[in-house]
Amino acid sequence: MNKHELEQYLHEHIPLSLAMQVGVVEMGDDGVILSAPLAPNINHTSTIFGGSASAVAILAAWSLVHVRLKNAGIASSIVIQRNSMEYEQPIYGGFIARSLITQPEAWQLFMRTFLRWGRARIAVSSLLEYKGETVGIFEGDFVAINLNPRKS
Amino acid sequence: MNKHELEQYLHEHIPLSLAMQVGVVEMGDDGVILSAPLAPNINHTSTIFGGSASAVAILAAWSLVHVRLKNAGIASSIVIQRNSMEYEQPIYGGFIARSLITQPEAWQLFMRTFLRWGRARIAVSSLLEYKGETVGIFEGDFVAINLNPRKS
Repeated sequence: MNKHELEQYLHEHIPLSLAMQVGVVEMGDDGVILSAPLAPNINHTSTIFGGSASAVAILAAWSLVHVRLKNAGIASSIVIQRNSMEYEQPIYGGFIARSLITQPEAWQLFMRTFLRWGRARIAVSSLLEYKGETVGIFEGDFVAINLNPRKS
Repeated sequence: MNKHELEQYLHEHIPLSLAMQVGVVEMGDDGVILSAPLAPNINHTSTIFGGSASAVAILAAWSLVHVRLKNAGIASSIVIQRNSMEYEQPIYGGFIARSLITQPEAWQLFMRTFLRWGRARIAVSSLLEYKGETVGIFEGDFVAINLNPRKS
């Protein structure tokens, strides 16, 4: 799976990502960087609507779990369970959301649980950046379900 | 301000609300109820995208503060500062977001602070409902800035 394929997947399966004009800037096991421009995401104060900031952060975090499992050859369904979001600064223009898994060992535990039970939860963060500065922080819990569990 | 005016305001000033096809179902000092259909808000599992659920919850909560201040004859600018969101159940179709201010006395304190300092913070909740059942809970802090402060 490459950047273009991820972007196409998001636009096809989550039409709001197309409405927000979300682009995939970078994609790898370490993180996914998504971008979104101001115009479709503007609010009444001519800054980025909080709902857009939050939605792009969710997509970046979701994509990281999706990409890692896909790269491991695993077919899964990943859904969000809860999240928090801090809107630290108004965002005056196009921004990026950079996802990461802050504790590397959390992924190992997630994978062990996932492979054993066919289901596991992982916490993923996304940092929102505007002109190189962090302007928002997202933290979310995602649950992945194995669509092709091995017989034990 | 009536339901139609609020809907028009949202669609004009926050274009993502139009992309999500957000409608105003009810509007009053006690709460605002917004609706959104499945099609523009669908995800890869054919349920409501978490980013849409979250964005509609934000709009319902924001609208309640906006409507109350507008009804009090106050011109203000309201922005979100932080939020949490619990996605309790998958949402299989069109849903509503019902906003409320859980502590009535919190509004009185908010208004006193707002009128005195020209700026105040208020916590607002939104319940997401699908077919009469609560499927998600949003809690957010909003900051309102008085655009026409009185001289003291």
